[in-house]
Amino acid sequence: MIVVLKQTANKDDVERLKNLVEKQGVRTSVVVGTEQTIIGLIGDTTIIDPKTIEVDEAVDHVMRVSEPYKLANRAFHPEDTIIDVCGVKIGGGHLGLIAGPCSVENEKQIIEVARSVKASGANILRGGAFKPRTSPYSFQGMGEEALNLLLKAKEETGLPICTELMDTEHIQLFNEKVDIVQIGARNMQNYSLLKRVGHEIKKPVLLKRGLSATYEEWIMAAEYIMANGNPNVILCERGIRTFETYTRNALDLQAIPVIKKLTHLPIIIDPSHAGGKWWLVPPMAKASIAAGCDGLMIEVHNDPEKALSDGPQSLRPDKYDSLMQDIKKLAAIFGKEYE
Amino acid sequence: MIVVLKQTANKDDVERLKNLVEKQGVRTSVVVGTEQTIIGLIGDTTIIDPKTIEVDEAVDHVMRVSEPYKLANRAFHPEDTIIDVCGVKIGGGHLGLIAGPCSVENEKQIIEVARSVKASGANILRGGAFKPRTSPYSFQGMGEEALNLLLKAKEETGLPICTELMDTEHIQLFNEKVDIVQIGARNMQNYSLLKRVGHEIKKPVLLKRGLSATYEEWIMAAEYIMANGNPNVILCERGIRTFETYTRNALDLQAIPVIKKLTHLPIIIDPSHAGGKWWLVPPMAKASIAAGCDGLMIEVHNDPEKALSDGPQSLRPDKYDSLMQDIKKLAAIFGKEYE
Amino acid sequence: MIVVLKQTANKDDVERLKNLVEKQGVRTSVVVGTEQTIIGLIGDTTIIDPKTIEVDEAVDHVMRVSEPYKLANRAFHPEDTIIDVCGVKIGGGHLGLIAGPCSVENEKQIIEVARSVKASGANILRGGAFKPRTSPYSFQGMGEEALNLLLKAKEETGLPICTELMDTEHIQLFNEKVDIVQIGARNMQNYSLLKRVGHEIKKPVLLKRGLSATYEEWIMAAEYIMANGNPNVILCERGIRTFETYTRNALDLQAIPVIKKLTHLPIIIDPSHAGGKWWLVPPMAKASIAAGCDGLMIEVHNDPEKALSDGPQSLRPDKYDSLMQDIKKLAAIFGKEYE
Amino acid sequence: MIVVLKQTANKDDVERLKNLVEKQGVRTSVVVGTEQTIIGLIGDTTIIDPKTIEVDEAVDHVMRVSEPYKLANRAFHPEDTIIDVCGVKIGGGHLGLIAGPCSVENEKQIIEVARSVKASGANILRGGAFKPRTSPYSFQGMGEEALNLLLKAKEETGLPICTELMDTEHIQLFNEKVDIVQIGARNMQNYSLLKRVGHEIKKPVLLKRGLSATYEEWIMAAEYIMANGNPNVILCERGIRTFETYTRNALDLQAIPVIKKLTHLPIIIDPSHAGGKWWLVPPMAKASIAAGCDGLMIEVHNDPEKALSDGPQSLRPDKYDSLMQDIKKLAAIFGKEYE
Repeated sequence: MIVVLKQTANKDDVERLKNLVEKQGVRTSVVVGTEQTIIGLIGDTTIIDPKTIEVDEAVDHVMRVSEPYKLANRAFHPEDTIIDVCGVKIGGGHLGLIAGPCSVENEKQIIEVARSVKASGANILRGGAFKPRTSPYSFQGMGEEALNLLLKAKEETGLPICTELMDTEHIQLFNEKVDIVQIGARNMQNYSLLKRVGHEIKKPVLLKRGLSATYEEWIMAAEYIMANGNPNVILCERGIRTFETYTRNALDLQAIPVIKKLTHLPIIIDPSHAGGKWWLVPPMAKASIAAGCDGLMIEVHNDPEKALSDGPQSLRPDKYDSLMQDIKKLAAIFGKEYE
Repeated sequence: MIVVLKQTANKDDVERLKNLVEKQGVRTSVVVGTEQTIIGLIGDTTIIDPKTIEVDEAVDHVMRVSEPYKLANRAFHPEDTIIDVCGVKIGGGHLGLIAGPCSVENEKQIIEVARSVKASGANILRGGAFKPRTSPYSFQGMGEEALNLLLKAKEETGLPICTELMDTEHIQLFNEKVDIVQIGARNMQNYSLLKRVGHEIKKPVLLKRGLSATYEEWIMAAEYIMANGNPNVILCERGIRTFETYTRNALDLQAIPVIKKLTHLPIIIDPSHAGGKWWLVPPMAKASIAAGCDGLMIEVHNDPEKALSDGPQSLRPDKYDSLMQDIKKLAAIFGKEYE
Repeated sequence: MIVVLKQTANKDDVERLKNLVEKQGVRTSVVVGTEQTIIGLIGDTTIIDPKTIEVDEAVDHVMRVSEPYKLANRAFHPEDTIIDVCGVKIGGGHLGLIAGPCSVENEKQIIEVARSVKASGANILRGGAFKPRTSPYSFQGMGEEALNLLLKAKEETGLPICTELMDTEHIQLFNEKVDIVQIGARNMQNYSLLKRVGHEIKKPVLLKRGLSATYEEWIMAAEYIMANGNPNVILCERGIRTFETYTRNALDLQAIPVIKKLTHLPIIIDPSHAGGKWWLVPPMAKASIAAGCDGLMIEVHNDPEKALSDGPQSLRPDKYDSLMQDIKKLAAIFGKEYE
Repeated sequence: MIVVLKQTANKDDVERLKNLVEKQGVRTSVVVGTEQTIIGLIGDTTIIDPKTIEVDEAVDHVMRVSEPYKLANRAFHPEDTIIDVCGVKIGGGHLGLIAGPCSVENEKQIIEVARSVKASGANILRGGAFKPRTSPYSFQGMGEEALNLLLKAKEETGLPICTELMDTEHIQLFNEKVDIVQIGARNMQNYSLLKRVGHEIKKPVLLKRGLSATYEEWIMAAEYIMANGNPNVILCERGIRTFETYTRNALDLQAIPVIKKLTHLPIIIDPSHAGGKWWLVPPMAKASIAAGCDGLMIEVHNDPEKALSDGPQSLRPDKYDSLMQDIKKLAAIFGKEYE
């Protein structure tokens, strides 16, 4: 961490600041410039809140030199983390191919879709039970009943299941019934939820990036879960908010190499929510694999025109099947495996 | 709501779509253009999810003509809502002048600050008890103990108290002890929290705008609270995320006239969190009053250099006092009252 | 185009507005809703400025139903445009593989790089002559001398050359010496330049997307060039500005399917400028091809550490060669050709 | 400037880098941390391009400690710059109150508006002659004829005139006829134009902030003009692009205190272009004055419904007059003068 002093700072200011930060357990080194003096902090600065230094009247600003996260940091854990979900591996060259409807709507629907995506090569089933909806007047999901239907589909197909947790009161239920617990984009900084998921959830957690979360904030959200006891975090890019409104969000595929450089956690891509239009999904799914991601989460619906939510971004089973043929060719080129 | 058909759509498509939407309880009117046909939906479209129509293969896109919210809509409730907090009014020409430290740190601090801001003219006390922090390693607030200290400060000064609720498990506690329940920016789309706050919280709710929430999403979050039973919502702009990083966020003061046009709810401004620097607070607070807001939420700390959180954006009591002299002059010009 | 009236609008308003727009050469159709009346405009609305209607006191807002561009519009020109640059084709299944240094620095450098990228499979050479730099104190490019060096490299290798035009006074020079005339991101809405480029430049134009340009604004910039006489426009996505600052910009690969849907023009991707870091280039270049783009523009420097501009985003020749091996495999899978 | 080395960097790397930067005329100071080593650069780093260092394989990243601009920097020029336009002062406590139509349309219009805004208290007249329009099919301005009409309005009213320069070929014309030369938002990084405006324009320059320009980029654009010879630059905030689309742009009023802290140049606000709706102008204009700006640029049209451009954001003369009454009260409170 670097403390940049104001041009007006004097020797006493430098001494005071040195004492201030040394009390927090780091050593200091002072560089006197022609216009400004800086103080370098040496040691573990992860626990220092830069604002507690920046507030000093002699300080112009404070800059971090190293990342504020430890457990998720590739620097301290060079090997790829590989997450095992009932035998399906994600990360380290293994692709998690998650597919299914936005919302579970009835038994027939979820079982048909599950069979179909499995036949095309998916290895994990998704389906919304509790739905975060912008309008209080929209369908809010079938709730616990949907979890039971997902379990039936799992029995039928053997596919592990992934669904979103929105409320701490459902933690026990999810621990019992769900294989991957998803934290949605809108809850990425719901710290009460993150802490309890870290502490109490025993299953892998799929953490979606918030609509306007920086890479660092996203990784810090993973760090919350890890620091509270659950190391099995899968990061999922699902589009970020920009000025462009033709698409629902912009899909940030640079996140793939960046997250892999900064962390050891797997990263998967959800092209369905990013663009909000089904015809954007196949090109973006292929691009994601070519860029080196560890998996895909794709919405598939057997009858999108009757879907209770997010129909326009759902692929029909035949289009998903056709996409999966290309995905398999790309996996072969780039040496990726999928179980 | 307007359904724009593709250029390739034929008469059968038009008929099918007319039937589809008329089943949802609205009438239709078809306009045949030279290149494209459109179908206008007539009636209450609030409950129609445009995506359920957009998914049809003959549809190019769907556009809303009117807003998707009702209870918060100025069109159906032309008078300003005035919120009463223990006798302090907010809205309709009355200013809520909220001030206090980012975090409650100890009894001496909160009581000193409370006395000081009251002497300067504040009419509501703020102070963080449960703190949403980006890092799991940062100070997370004193929790329930802080609520008790806020109550002591209320006894001493008579100022009603405002603090943030992060977790549904604290709802009962907040109902007992807090006068305005704040929902933070990061929880603006935590729908589980919004529903229960609407249903169970009996006090006014201060709803902060999410960092990247549109006006419509923000109002829809208020609609969640109102539709679940609590009509006393105060909206609070606290800065939005943009490409500029010199300031923490950009303060969107156009929100003031826009929110007043679209809704009947009061809107207050938090210039402290927006800019993240104390010297931005006085000019932006004055600008907010000149633009017609219904109140201000300002961080004041008696010793910012020792603050456990957000010191750089806190005003010292003397600077707050000086700002309040200007605020009073502006209130006089624009005919605003404060109790 | 749809004119949405205010709830307070009366019959006289509707009549006045009908007359107003019918004078502009379109027919109208009125839909009377329960809360609001709308007027549909039928005919060619491309030349109508919606603001001239929106200003009417009885109007709430105006919405476009169809795109404001014609010449670039896929709807009126369904076949892919294929641009021919000295025999190298771009678009319609043909890849333009542009590579070379950010700036031309000397004869040895540009000829070495040209030979090297040609050997790896590039079919067009890039090199900056006139450079747009954020700081007036930075290297501004070698100017006309660089054009002559590019011509020497062309003689040596046969590669057509592409470089940026910043100033209308160089139009003649570029017509004589350059094969693809690039318009930079910062000049995408320099309408004086666009008009004269459309009117006077006889070569294909590569139009970079502005840092915060919407798809529509970008296509409208192409329409400026086309409407002024030059139909040979290649669109180039080079990253958009968002809140994320770890990368220079976010690369918007959804632009590929979107631009192909909306227009018939080829779209190529510049991953070097988007991310600003060389290690982001290979994954993003591969992703671009997988998403279906018509070409790549990649910075290659034989000695990036001595580059006079943008060294950190330049690939060394060996890394470019290795990337091109993967690009060729992807081209084979997806049936793309390159000359 | 601070060079942060990778954790893998060794002593030889440090030596090589020290030599590299010392050749550029600065001294160095090395701080060896527990995980990373940093090199501090001491001396004038304005002319060093951080990318030339960042490219080194041993370097993780480079951070600036001080600003890359000199002439515009408040640190080297503590007093406010006051610009004199034919006797009207802008800056240092003096308000430039610019008003007039978006486009000059005919003699009657411009003279009527000029008289009217002067009567209300405006001290400078604006009016577009050459118009940057998103569509090639929209009205592009009356060109030189408009300049002559502006001169007639100046004769009639004594108001100095301000209008936008888009093309270097009009520089001589503007030197002869115009009092303040405006550079539009879309040309803020048109470096060819900035250089020649700095070198050849003898009048004050009003430099609008680009839609997505950071404060630093905006100040660097001013630095281009100043470094080329024209020190009389007025900065103008006119709204930035964000995710919100209800308003045309977000008006960033924090720019006022930030620009005043970083530079000595005057800053004025254009609330008309920012919001794009006339009813946003009065509250935002008042907010701007309360925040401490040096002037306002406001669109006024005597018949907005017939305006050839930007009618919806123009105030009618009576609304402008009413606004100016409030502006005068605010000026009195804050001790601002206007001639």
